Amino acid sequence: MRVGILTSGGDCQALNATMRGVGKSLYNLLGDVEIYGFLDGYKGLIYDEYRKMERSDFSGILTEGGTILGTSRTPFKQIREPDANGLDKVEAMKHTYRKLRLDCLVVLGGNGSLKTANLLSEEGLNVIGCPKTIDNDLYGTDMTFGFYSAVQVATNAIDCIHTTAASHGRVFIVEIMGHKVGLLTLYAGLAGGADIILVPEIPYDINAVCKKIAERHASGSRFSIVAIAEGAISKDESKLTKKELKKKLAEDRKNHPSVAYKLAKEIEEKTGAEVRVTVPGHTQRGGQPVPYDRVFATRIGAEAARMIKKEKYGVMLSLKNNEITTVPLADIAGKLKTVDPDSGIVKEAKMLGISFGDEE
Amino acid sequence: MRVGILTSGGDCQALNATMRGVGKSLYNLLGDVEIYGFLDGYKGLIYDEYRKMERSDFSGILTEGGTILGTSRTPFKQIREPDANGLDKVEAMKHTYRKLRLDCLVVLGGNGSLKTANLLSEEGLNVIGCPKTIDNDLYGTDMTFGFYSAVQVATNAIDCIHTTAASHGRVFIVEIMGHKVGLLTLYAGLAGGADIILVPEIPYDINAVCKKIAERHASGSRFSIVAIAEGAISKDESKLTKKELKKKLAEDRKNHPSVAYKLAKEIEEKTGAEVRVTVPGHTQRGGQPVPYDRVFATRIGAEAARMIKKEKYGVMLSLKNNEITTVPLADIAGKLKTVDPDSGIVKEAKMLGISFGDEE
Amino acid sequence: MRVGILTSGGDCQALNATMRGVGKSLYNLLGDVEIYGFLDGYKGLIYDEYRKMERSDFSGILTEGGTILGTSRTPFKQIREPDANGLDKVEAMKHTYRKLRLDCLVVLGGNGSLKTANLLSEEGLNVIGCPKTIDNDLYGTDMTFGFYSAVQVATNAIDCIHTTAASHGRVFIVEIMGHKVGLLTLYAGLAGGADIILVPEIPYDINAVCKKIAERHASGSRFSIVAIAEGAISKDESKLTKKELKKKLAEDRKNHPSVAYKLAKEIEEKTGAEVRVTVPGHTQRGGQPVPYDRVFATRIGAEAARMIKKEKYGVMLSLKNNEITTVPLADIAGKLKTVDPDSGIVKEAKMLGISFGDEE
Amino acid sequence: MRVGILTSGGDCQALNATMRGVGKSLYNLLGDVEIYGFLDGYKGLIYDEYRKMERSDFSGILTEGGTILGTSRTPFKQIREPDANGLDKVEAMKHTYRKLRLDCLVVLGGNGSLKTANLLSEEGLNVIGCPKTIDNDLYGTDMTFGFYSAVQVATNAIDCIHTTAASHGRVFIVEIMGHKVGLLTLYAGLAGGADIILVPEIPYDINAVCKKIAERHASGSRFSIVAIAEGAISKDESKLTKKELKKKLAEDRKNHPSVAYKLAKEIEEKTGAEVRVTVPGHTQRGGQPVPYDRVFATRIGAEAARMIKKEKYGVMLSLKNNEITTVPLADIAGKLKTVDPDSGIVKEAKMLGISFGDEE
Repeated sequence: MRVGILTSGGDCQALNATMRGVGKSLYNLLGDVEIYGFLDGYKGLIYDEYRKMERSDFSGILTEGGTILGTSRTPFKQIREPDANGLDKVEAMKHTYRKLRLDCLVVLGGNGSLKTANLLSEEGLNVIGCPKTIDNDLYGTDMTFGFYSAVQVATNAIDCIHTTAASHGRVFIVEIMGHKVGLLTLYAGLAGGADIILVPEIPYDINAVCKKIAERHASGSRFSIVAIAEGAISKDESKLTKKELKKKLAEDRKNHPSVAYKLAKEIEEKTGAEVRVTVPGHTQRGGQPVPYDRVFATRIGAEAARMIKKEKYGVMLSLKNNEITTVPLADIAGKLKTVDPDSGIVKEAKMLGISFGDEE
Repeated sequence: MRVGILTSGGDCQALNATMRGVGKSLYNLLGDVEIYGFLDGYKGLIYDEYRKMERSDFSGILTEGGTILGTSRTPFKQIREPDANGLDKVEAMKHTYRKLRLDCLVVLGGNGSLKTANLLSEEGLNVIGCPKTIDNDLYGTDMTFGFYSAVQVATNAIDCIHTTAASHGRVFIVEIMGHKVGLLTLYAGLAGGADIILVPEIPYDINAVCKKIAERHASGSRFSIVAIAEGAISKDESKLTKKELKKKLAEDRKNHPSVAYKLAKEIEEKTGAEVRVTVPGHTQRGGQPVPYDRVFATRIGAEAARMIKKEKYGVMLSLKNNEITTVPLADIAGKLKTVDPDSGIVKEAKMLGISFGDEE
Repeated sequence: MRVGILTSGGDCQALNATMRGVGKSLYNLLGDVEIYGFLDGYKGLIYDEYRKMERSDFSGILTEGGTILGTSRTPFKQIREPDANGLDKVEAMKHTYRKLRLDCLVVLGGNGSLKTANLLSEEGLNVIGCPKTIDNDLYGTDMTFGFYSAVQVATNAIDCIHTTAASHGRVFIVEIMGHKVGLLTLYAGLAGGADIILVPEIPYDINAVCKKIAERHASGSRFSIVAIAEGAISKDESKLTKKELKKKLAEDRKNHPSVAYKLAKEIEEKTGAEVRVTVPGHTQRGGQPVPYDRVFATRIGAEAARMIKKEKYGVMLSLKNNEITTVPLADIAGKLKTVDPDSGIVKEAKMLGISFGDEE
Repeated sequence: MRVGILTSGGDCQALNATMRGVGKSLYNLLGDVEIYGFLDGYKGLIYDEYRKMERSDFSGILTEGGTILGTSRTPFKQIREPDANGLDKVEAMKHTYRKLRLDCLVVLGGNGSLKTANLLSEEGLNVIGCPKTIDNDLYGTDMTFGFYSAVQVATNAIDCIHTTAASHGRVFIVEIMGHKVGLLTLYAGLAGGADIILVPEIPYDINAVCKKIAERHASGSRFSIVAIAEGAISKDESKLTKKELKKKLAEDRKNHPSVAYKLAKEIEEKTGAEVRVTVPGHTQRGGQPVPYDRVFATRIGAEAARMIKKEKYGVMLSLKNNEITTVPLADIAGKLKTVDPDSGIVKEAKMLGISFGDEE
């Protein structure tokens, strides 16, 4: 069999671990297999740039961060548009696929990338998706690889801030990745012992945030730690239309490089507290994958190989009840999993006294 | 309300995180609560040794390994026997419970400890169990806290061995905790990229193990890594009666401090390879809990508090499909969850070419 | 004997480890000793706020980040001015010292704090200084505690960025603490494998920086990593008077929250490359101390106790040729150790091809 | 120029970092250079097995544990003996060196390996040594690379044991690498907060050890941690002749796999305490190098390249007063640096109350 593979979108940990799982299992299950690794995501498929991957290429990469194939962000919208030279990208991908006589294409990607994967599936290619993203925002799976490794990095940041915060007596804001979905912030906030957790799905009231800080101060706590997602918005902002919100955020960005800096200024003005901002940024995508992700990625990879052997295509591998299963790409493409404000984990966090800034 | 709490059995990470969850949530949900922490597990309950725990006692312990209450191994069998002074331990525990006018007792424990918890429940005490153990071998829950933190430590050991093994060209054996259940070895073995994984549930054939090593050597690999559980047994041993096996293991122990040393000698004799043994031992119970465990423990603690508020007793908190729920102590006491040789994860490991030593 | 102790200035790792060394050794060497821990640095000494520290207070804090006594930044200049109520701070400190009949005061502090320590020494108090700072910029000692732990955190950030940078093909800027001195940036840059290292002591030419990036790109490297100290300045800026520079930096701050963002914009404009900024910020002061710092802090603490026993005051403990010795506070107060552009380590970095942005 | 390079002896962290330093600097300083990497240490030089190393071979290996060239232990004694086929190894090495028309050979090695390096130097080859070993026992340099990374691993083990020990109330013994020299045990013991540190250079009295444990127990401590070097010996053993000692240790080895197990039994018998043994073993040689080692190794590598350019041979790179310098191989070959019982660091440890088991 002839199998193509690519990694697409923002990179994360365990991309290599997943490819190792796919590659080792394919060589093991099929014996006779040719694997083509496309460079820099869909770009490689469009422009016919790849390298043949031998059995040995999949050795020694289990713990490596990043992706040995490179990746690129190629938004779904962009995929459907011709390139600068007028090339039809979808047709180009189909052409490369057929030229190499591929039996299937394995795509490691998040939301946008899997939308493209579904498109290719609809266009007649045999496609298998693997759920990649630090955001864990993919519909149809309990987990995505990369998530717990990013939680680790973000939690480490909060841990470090914790000791320094306790020494000085300040408010610290840690900005965690997540433009639309707050799961990473929620988990890292819980794991790091944040006092206030602000996520896009639960608009916050600045007064509730400041009240929580004041209460902690009044009860003798020397510091407060706020974990805020990049895309957190206030209650007022949540009432705007999409267009109005976009405009407002663009305005804000002129004064503050990100949401954390804006919040810091508001808290300083309202409470007089000294506020410090930390932005772990892209470190959340890097470093070695944690054991959870390594096991999960390895399992996903093995099952992807099994699906290829079974010639079961048009699906994404998925975790359900601790077992790896599949869901049709068509069922999940373009859908998001988000923080449910009424979910158990949010309620549990509130039981401990953690504020989401939504108290009346 | 008046709540007792204790940590029992082998210690693990996230015991303090769980108690923090219970304590913070109790103070938060009930306002008026008295919490009594019994020292060194059931011993404290038997001999009336405890300390009252204030709200502040639960602050700053989220990331601390160990248990601030101490623990002890008090096997179920021992609990039922009178102590050296003829004291009936069960009656003593009931006496302490009543003397302190407790409304309930929260037990953080593993298999044996929850058996005792169930006994106390049957004796009329209000008991809530929290699933603690590095082995993840508790029936009735998808996960126990401590497991992923122990996986982290064991995986780190394999990671370190990996680089040194690659430099020298040897066989390395890493012995991982688990006398009856191999889940910890299975997960750490997968996460660390072990070539051979030996667990109690899948008896191994020494010839299959050596064959795998020889195959790797023949294909140019400079080294092989074996992850073996403390309680792994050979196919021959698996055919013995329980009594015969016990006798044989006692004999073995005279010559080898543990199973890894025995296996090392066998491999050296059969293959001529240079073999090295590493025993991370009790480090697997120590260090800071990983984020997974911190989140999970916090959730368990919050739900324990909620159950207390609801006066729902005689249950163990449990993870099912990512939600925290409860199972009756009576349903799970004394039952083990083990590695299922036919489970998805074992099959997936085999797809990658990992040997469990059971090949024909 | 009666000994006071305080931690002053920006916090860092190993403050607790050092106090543990002082406290354990004092109890051990003197048997009969009373130790008074002043709260929040000099503030506690000024306003007579302290707690008596028992032998057990020094147990279990070796690995804890932060400081159990709290700290505050009280600049030397501020120390010499009366407080809001007209209180003479220096007199107040002397008063507290005498009221408690202290035999000596141990100050864990950096540059400013040791200047104050020297002042108190000149005023007749018995003072011993311990060299604390993540910047390693204290004159008169080869090393300060906190430095290598901060290097670890900053290096981890660069490590994480490395894997993500390699996947995407971008320029990444990591901003590392250090307003006046670039030692932390230099060491973390070397340890993390940065391609360009910019420190205050070696003004950079933006064209040299961009040239290095272009060269790397031309030779097939997919990414470049810049480690920049908070206080790095360009060659043009280095020619300004102190007053002019201050004004310019204030202007810059209006457009960019910090130097890294400014550099990012310049590089983007000049090279067209996609640039990302990461600011580990206060995480560099937090987390557990690395073994180097623990050993060093323990040694410093023991020798401080020995000096107290010998009644040798007016000195700072110092590392010279791997031995702990002392230097007079008067000799080092107010002096800085900086990156010497002609030192071995800078030359060695350049031999590897690392750019400091000062190439002609 | 034509440069050979090899890594010899027990592997450790930062071997790759050092080679990266050498390789990058050579390409940078000389432009025109050919580098030959010999496989598996001196074996590769003897049997003419090597690979040519391009500039790109030195990229991306800064943080990798192990050695990309492989290594082997080839004792000095063995080097001087003919091999199984009667080959004169020294002549074979000279032959390979000349056949490849090398200008010099860079050897990354410890004591034994540098003795061989010196022999080759005496035989007329141009040799440069780099001080590699986790033991830091090389004469003529303040530090060796690998040491602080091994300290990190060993300290992590003690840290993990600390939390579990505190929970249970036991004596824990951690066996740390070091057959002849106890520096690694001393530093890890100090960094991990061990209560008792036993090293080969300070023979211990089992009664002093047990007395210390009893004292801690009496003063309310729940546990004691012993850090023992593999080669630690008792006072009685220290009085034996070398031959007698060898015989006794061989006897001991029949009953106990290592010194820690023997000590455990003695303590159990004498104190009745429950004792647990942990043997981190080869993990101490593995994993990523810590920043200290990365910076140090990079500097060593750069200076090795500079020496080659200057054609200064017959030397080992060495750290003296934070600068990299050189010492003649002839001056240091075969000499050991050990723990000086009268050194500052040992005295400081004793000031804190740490026992070395040598108290009268």
